[in-house]
Amino acid sequence: MYPESLANLIECFKMLPGVGNKTAERYALLILEKNSEEIYRFIDALKDSKEKIKHCKICGNYSEDDKCLICKDKTRNTKQICVVQSSKDIIAMEKTLEYKGVYHVLGGVISQNKGILPEDLNIKQLLERIKEGVEEVIIATNPTLEGETTALYLDKLLENEEVLVTRLAHGIPMGGHLDYADELTLIKALEGRKKM
Amino acid sequence: MYPESLANLIECFKMLPGVGNKTAERYALLILEKNSEEIYRFIDALKDSKEKIKHCKICGNYSEDDKCLICKDKTRNTKQICVVQSSKDIIAMEKTLEYKGVYHVLGGVISQNKGILPEDLNIKQLLERIKEGVEEVIIATNPTLEGETTALYLDKLLENEEVLVTRLAHGIPMGGHLDYADELTLIKALEGRKKM
Repeated sequence: MYPESLANLIECFKMLPGVGNKTAERYALLILEKNSEEIYRFIDALKDSKEKIKHCKICGNYSEDDKCLICKDKTRNTKQICVVQSSKDIIAMEKTLEYKGVYHVLGGVISQNKGILPEDLNIKQLLERIKEGVEEVIIATNPTLEGETTALYLDKLLENEEVLVTRLAHGIPMGGHLDYADELTLIKALEGRKKM
Repeated sequence: MYPESLANLIECFKMLPGVGNKTAERYALLILEKNSEEIYRFIDALKDSKEKIKHCKICGNYSEDDKCLICKDKTRNTKQICVVQSSKDIIAMEKTLEYKGVYHVLGGVISQNKGILPEDLNIKQLLERIKEGVEEVIIATNPTLEGETTALYLDKLLENEEVLVTRLAHGIPMGGHLDYADELTLIKALEGRKKM
């Protein structure tokens, strides 16, 4: 039904998250209506993202240089390191505009299912950074089975270091409803209750 | 917050229909995780879609050759032409698997607002095709103000030709509900009522 190159383009769009046949078709048809300039801007952006973006040598965040924008920023508190699973999580944290420390990207979590061991993660470098006089390590892996396992592993690993190890609070999300919260979240919310 | 090339890629994804900041961000971050092979497949598909896809010289449909797949198909009834606004509409019609005639793409509709006149549309070629012995012209422009105007214009234009001019039926969509239908649709449904 479609010319081959259009069918190809539709297939490519389907690799994007949450994009099915119908949406991929809409995207591809829109591309056909765009002028060459816009398409080549898109092509260049894709190429650049692949060729220019690497990982920061200090924290593992996405960066075009050896040092990422956050590690370069002299106003950040380098004595506070927030440990996250992936660079995506840094973007989420940065949006809060609250956190002024630096980050460390593990590049995954310990997972028996996927065969990911501690040595596959960016942990050795974290230890080196900590030895340079870090005061607090905030473990911000996701509250999933694997994220929790990784958090416990790191906590154990760091128990002999002179550093405060904390974990992001778990509980009912703001704007959420008690009757929609799952049992585990409620248990965590109870455990973590605070004096008002 | 993002490296420049990532920010660029996010901007590019935002040109897709219905894609806002959040979705563009998800798409761009996924691209960063894909391997080079997949990215270059995507880049090639974009390039090909721009360089290879042109319009069929007969009907104006998307095609890689001078003649589109439908015009090439010898089993199609060339005495029946369905007139649509854009190539996208052909894809919708083809999905029905019901229509066995051929198409003609106008490349738009007459619009005072946008300053689109009949001479801006692919009408001259339609007239030439009709003179070659077409039996029926089905006008399938959208049931909007502009689509209706264009349909009336074509009907008037063809009144002296020896050809049957028909229009797609308008009414309540299948699976739709009367109480959700707008007044105009209900009026059209009433006007077009049939003996059971």
